Amino acid sequence: MYEYCHGGNVHFEPGGINFLDLSANINPLGFPEGVEDAIKNEITFCYRYPDNNSAVLRECIADFERVKPEWIFCGNGSSDIIFRLPLCLKPRKALIAIPTFSDYERSLKSYGTKIHYHQLMESQNFECDENIITTAEKKHIDLIFLCNPNNPTGILTKRKIIENLLRCCQNSATVVVDECFIDFTEQANDVTVKPLLSEFDNLIILKAFTKIFALPGIRLGYAICNNKTLMDKLYFHGSDWAVSNLAHAAGIAALKNAETYLKKTVLFVKQEKQFVKRELENLRYKVFNSQANYLFLKSPYDFDLKEELDKHRIRIRSYKNTDGLKSGFYRIALSQHQHNIRLVETVRKIVSDGRLN
Amino acid sequence: MYEYCHGGNVHFEPGGINFLDLSANINPLGFPEGVEDAIKNEITFCYRYPDNNSAVLRECIADFERVKPEWIFCGNGSSDIIFRLPLCLKPRKALIAIPTFSDYERSLKSYGTKIHYHQLMESQNFECDENIITTAEKKHIDLIFLCNPNNPTGILTKRKIIENLLRCCQNSATVVVDECFIDFTEQANDVTVKPLLSEFDNLIILKAFTKIFALPGIRLGYAICNNKTLMDKLYFHGSDWAVSNLAHAAGIAALKNAETYLKKTVLFVKQEKQFVKRELENLRYKVFNSQANYLFLKSPYDFDLKEELDKHRIRIRSYKNTDGLKSGFYRIALSQHQHNIRLVETVRKIVSDGRLN
Repeated sequence: MYEYCHGGNVHFEPGGINFLDLSANINPLGFPEGVEDAIKNEITFCYRYPDNNSAVLRECIADFERVKPEWIFCGNGSSDIIFRLPLCLKPRKALIAIPTFSDYERSLKSYGTKIHYHQLMESQNFECDENIITTAEKKHIDLIFLCNPNNPTGILTKRKIIENLLRCCQNSATVVVDECFIDFTEQANDVTVKPLLSEFDNLIILKAFTKIFALPGIRLGYAICNNKTLMDKLYFHGSDWAVSNLAHAAGIAALKNAETYLKKTVLFVKQEKQFVKRELENLRYKVFNSQANYLFLKSPYDFDLKEELDKHRIRIRSYKNTDGLKSGFYRIALSQHQHNIRLVETVRKIVSDGRLN
Repeated sequence: MYEYCHGGNVHFEPGGINFLDLSANINPLGFPEGVEDAIKNEITFCYRYPDNNSAVLRECIADFERVKPEWIFCGNGSSDIIFRLPLCLKPRKALIAIPTFSDYERSLKSYGTKIHYHQLMESQNFECDENIITTAEKKHIDLIFLCNPNNPTGILTKRKIIENLLRCCQNSATVVVDECFIDFTEQANDVTVKPLLSEFDNLIILKAFTKIFALPGIRLGYAICNNKTLMDKLYFHGSDWAVSNLAHAAGIAALKNAETYLKKTVLFVKQEKQFVKRELENLRYKVFNSQANYLFLKSPYDFDLKEELDKHRIRIRSYKNTDGLKSGFYRIALSQHQHNIRLVETVRKIVSDGRLN
């Protein structure tokens, strides 16, 4: 039977509505002002079809991303685009750097592509190194998924490595760089691979309103790509009306004061990350150097942190036996300050109780 | 370049906002009361992911359709499901009865399935007869799309024919019956193939909130199917969060007083259909026997009715050189009474002007 394997669904479990949900990496500031009114004003027009071409929204995204509107394709969340890509590209052999977001693998399995895995090593703090290029060449890979910063580790891949990968694969593979979490990083402009778009038409960047604008319930994501043929294919290989009228309105509104909102977000996430990281490290957890709005950690203890936190009505993600990881790895989303305090104090209590037993 | 080939987008053209849009077959009564408030109340929860399992909505749909909730899969409009189906079923040879809704063909082309066409004949008033069964057998078809009532003709296929088709193909093919327009028919219960679901696990029925509940801008459709394996595949082969929080809320609200709303709809559509059909027939148009909320017609004149109506800011669908149709075929959606009067009077003027020239 098909099993859902993401976070963010604890509130659908019996009693789950009372949980503090740290299993989904949503901007703790909540969605931007203006989104609510924009949706309300759009409802009356829902008797009409949405714009299959997302013309107005693409203009706004283009402004925000400082790219051309014709480089943007909007979808029903970035996952919609992830599932369209294999249909567009018809890949025979794909490469995924793991551990990572599970939808890349599922979309490739759905299409029937053979998947090679590039194991990111704990000993290298889960950083992606140049070896991925050798693997891509040696295995005759034609599609590569790379999440940057990576989910669940929060680790960034150096732009230079991605540039070398793009150059090596220029005639053989498309590289999908998922930057859904990049706007949480402190110097997003220095790490995004957007500057490579004009040179490489085998690069696709994925982004979404889900995480950074705290709008997972709206369903809105986009691809940025300087490849007209691929753009056309993205339109062909899926529903014409993937983006609802309400998502269009919400997206346009979210981008209105995006700069201020993102500055506030980055500052807030930085402070909370420092706080939670330090506290967890004091409790002997190994906390990796996440550049996003969540922390990836390894436990030195025998008990299952997810199960223990569940007893205290806090939900985190466990990565037991996932993507080459043994037990003891967890991902915790940063939340509002009082929630982060509750998390830290609860973990302290669990650890302290564990030591007494 | 990819070209959009549906109706319902005239308001995105320059000046198009002033057009009377009869190119999209949306319920002229507008969406049900309660939908607007339901969406408004849901906005605040858009910081959370939607239920990938659509549990509450599926219960409501099950009540409405009088089937089991586990027989229902919800998608981002029925077109989302149409694009998932080839991935689920991996068909080698599919059969489509044409002229029909173009997404069936596009989803099959997207996957790479070989397509056979069963031409519906004008001489038989575009009715689908038993020959489709012979074709399915002879061509070793493993997936069949049938729109019932058909779009654009509005013609119903007899339940007995679909039953025979299902029986003949029980071990060889899946039959997708798109009933998106069936609730506009006068005796929907007598013509739906829902009663065949318990016997045939190779039957999938598609329905949507788009047309009957006038909610194309929301994106919500569903499949009904008594086949656990296929259900699991529908979840696997696409995004987990295809249905937004707002679509969930809208769908649940739309179904609250569905019976009254549908009765009103059927009566209204019947009256308007009689009126417009008679008027167009008086102008010598051949109007086919549509059971849905639109009329399919053949022109006896040389001029292009769509182009002429465009000059009067009325948009209809033309089927020139589509699916085996020569020029002169049009589809006109029924609208509110004053709009239908405007249509009829405008056509009368065009015909009368044409005669003078």
